[in-house]
Amino acid sequence: MNATQIDKYFKDHRQAHLEELKSFLRIPSVSSLSEHKADMQKGAEWLIKSLTKAGLENASIDETDGHPVVYADWLHAEGKPTILVYGHYDVQPVDPLHLWETPPFDPHVRDNKLYARGASDDKGQVFMHMKAVEALLDLNGELPVNIKFILEGEEEIGSPSLPKYVEDNKDKLSADIIVISDTGMQGPGRPAVCYGLRGLAGIQIDVNGPKGDLHSGLYGGAVQNPLHAIVEILESFRDKEGVIQVEGFYDDVRPVSDEERAEFAALDFDLENEKQAIGISEDFGEKGYSFVERTWIRPTLEVNGITGGFSGEGIKTVLPAEASSKITCRLVPDQDPDDIIAKLKAHVEAHKPAGVTVDITEFDKGKPFLTPYDHPAIQAAGRSYEKVYQVPTAFTRMGGSIPIVAAFDEILGFPVVLMGFGLASENFHAPNEHFHLENFDKGLRVISDYLFEASTLGQ
Amino acid sequence: MNATQIDKYFKDHRQAHLEELKSFLRIPSVSSLSEHKADMQKGAEWLIKSLTKAGLENASIDETDGHPVVYADWLHAEGKPTILVYGHYDVQPVDPLHLWETPPFDPHVRDNKLYARGASDDKGQVFMHMKAVEALLDLNGELPVNIKFILEGEEEIGSPSLPKYVEDNKDKLSADIIVISDTGMQGPGRPAVCYGLRGLAGIQIDVNGPKGDLHSGLYGGAVQNPLHAIVEILESFRDKEGVIQVEGFYDDVRPVSDEERAEFAALDFDLENEKQAIGISEDFGEKGYSFVERTWIRPTLEVNGITGGFSGEGIKTVLPAEASSKITCRLVPDQDPDDIIAKLKAHVEAHKPAGVTVDITEFDKGKPFLTPYDHPAIQAAGRSYEKVYQVPTAFTRMGGSIPIVAAFDEILGFPVVLMGFGLASENFHAPNEHFHLENFDKGLRVISDYLFEASTLGQ
Repeated sequence: MNATQIDKYFKDHRQAHLEELKSFLRIPSVSSLSEHKADMQKGAEWLIKSLTKAGLENASIDETDGHPVVYADWLHAEGKPTILVYGHYDVQPVDPLHLWETPPFDPHVRDNKLYARGASDDKGQVFMHMKAVEALLDLNGELPVNIKFILEGEEEIGSPSLPKYVEDNKDKLSADIIVISDTGMQGPGRPAVCYGLRGLAGIQIDVNGPKGDLHSGLYGGAVQNPLHAIVEILESFRDKEGVIQVEGFYDDVRPVSDEERAEFAALDFDLENEKQAIGISEDFGEKGYSFVERTWIRPTLEVNGITGGFSGEGIKTVLPAEASSKITCRLVPDQDPDDIIAKLKAHVEAHKPAGVTVDITEFDKGKPFLTPYDHPAIQAAGRSYEKVYQVPTAFTRMGGSIPIVAAFDEILGFPVVLMGFGLASENFHAPNEHFHLENFDKGLRVISDYLFEASTLGQ
Repeated sequence: MNATQIDKYFKDHRQAHLEELKSFLRIPSVSSLSEHKADMQKGAEWLIKSLTKAGLENASIDETDGHPVVYADWLHAEGKPTILVYGHYDVQPVDPLHLWETPPFDPHVRDNKLYARGASDDKGQVFMHMKAVEALLDLNGELPVNIKFILEGEEEIGSPSLPKYVEDNKDKLSADIIVISDTGMQGPGRPAVCYGLRGLAGIQIDVNGPKGDLHSGLYGGAVQNPLHAIVEILESFRDKEGVIQVEGFYDDVRPVSDEERAEFAALDFDLENEKQAIGISEDFGEKGYSFVERTWIRPTLEVNGITGGFSGEGIKTVLPAEASSKITCRLVPDQDPDDIIAKLKAHVEAHKPAGVTVDITEFDKGKPFLTPYDHPAIQAAGRSYEKVYQVPTAFTRMGGSIPIVAAFDEILGFPVVLMGFGLASENFHAPNEHFHLENFDKGLRVISDYLFEASTLGQ
């Protein structure tokens, strides 16, 4: 078997594959809405059927406290590495429905793009992994590696049941590499392997002053205003360049090598283009770091919301009883979310304005994740992309957080390879989600190739 | 005629007076709601009838661009001073209706309090002035002073038509003193004459960053966050003790004499009681000034509202496209609202954070008002209260603003005496508004006496 055979196989089966994917996309498996509970079950059953048809074994629907996890494996490549493929079969809600050009659960191909909720995030990408396995088993009767699939139904609601499932099934899930296709490429025709994500730690700050709203004329100047108090706290968090002033905040930030920074600098990132795209005239942030570095390798503290007092039309001369703000930090290795939250709390305590009480609520936390970019499993993924796309692969980090990735990394303790085939323009989480079929076609070949690349990795 | 005769007159007529006031209170003259436009006309007509019955002359309904102004006078006290009585016949809306124990426009007396919308603010107090005139004319056939009534129908919506009316009718309205009963006493049994109000100047600050909300993971740290930017601006306005940092803000503040400050210190203001009432454990503000001074004689800058980003339940990692805040300053003599707004704008310009645009919108402005507290017209009012209430009168300022008072002061140029008979507990602007009839009974006598007191003032 060679690359030409595989190409021919995918060409010959393209129509059948698309029809099969469409049948998956027709299941409205919206995890956040209880009215779709039965559809979640349907989605899991569809996967069992399709995984079995692909030649995978031990397919099972594993119940959790929430929506079920689907598992399947093929473990006959003795002495070869094992790959754990993670993905999710649940999708985002579809509101506002009237903005969809074709119904979200009635898939249509237009202009070589497949339109449907889940087309890109993540049913389309999960499907590609299943079809790569099916292709190799059809052509060869065997796979070059052992493979396990773990497909969850709660990714879009924060994966509440998955950490426990992974913890309880450590042995069953043991592998050498985790491969996840749930992220994006750098741009059209520009493949990327993501090897790092920032972690997350957030708090809500509630400031309470007088027991009720006061008239600012009668009390202004003599009673601490909770809005001024919260402004004082928030202003103390950063300096004017965005450098975080929380004591010890940067203590555990692992230095990034000059070599890795040189790789970032070599990426064809177009700052002017980016600024135009988001509509800003100047960028912002810590001196000595590029836009890419500020979002990938530096931790942040951002106010996500402030509320308090009057915000209707016109004027209301109120001195409000309370004010509230939400802030989140993005963390980089080796910052720990619990440690950062403790430092945030100590900072607020040290900067508490007079005349008010301040309460802090913690939000969900996520650790940062990093597979060393020169790890063989990462570099192998880069080679597979390059063979198919015929351009160099970008090795990237991402500024966002996928807490479950860090949880995999932490619980299972083996490297995570993020091989994404989505594009930022594909409206995931929005109306008219779609998937560029160019990346569907190429992705099938990249994934197939990667199973061979991975087979040569030391275990 | 003496005080005993007057007392007897008001006792004899008490039931008739209350019935007549109730008929006034039954008119739902809500100025802010167009469905009550006809009721506003009814209210004006009721006044014409009642003013004429009282013996006043030249009663007229004067049309404006909004609700009409009612005028009447009695000008036969040759060589004597002229008093202009201002009041309003419009009332606040009554929502939430279900919280009223008896319907807002169906007056009831319970526990010697008259319950109805407008009972205290301001129909009840206007009515007392009309009945004092009627009593003196009935008993004496003449008044010790000349008197003019100007009763408007737009006070509760900010008096949009009144300044023009006053400007256009300067000669008709010329007088020696303006008397207004639309404020409160210091407390039950504790009369007060208010001789100063703070002015008002407000702005809205709108900060705009990226053209749409951004993902705080993908852009945090590299794009200026409008919430951080607005926090930076707001924090720059005051120091931690509330001292305003806007350049030149205090330049025009007229010094207050040691004598006047000694009068404030002598008032039986109970700070601990006040703190308990509003639910704060410590007061706040400029060093060197008491609670009373901070709210009466010092200018302020208060944030009345901030909005931006996410404020729902839980977390949303957004870097918002915009943030907004409303702030208002209370002004003292001789600060000028236009000058203060110019200084606020210059301050924001000088403290504009990088990476965002900032827009400023001005709100309605009002000048501070002050009649010297030792002015004979003020002191005379104090004497009248004292004779009836048998306790010393407090001479107070107020922290709030009644822009129309400053407009009277400015356009007509003669002293304003605020003789209030309301109590802070009487739910004006809220359900179950009521008026303590003790102050109705005493107020009639205070006002009657004041007409004699005022007759001796130099013109």
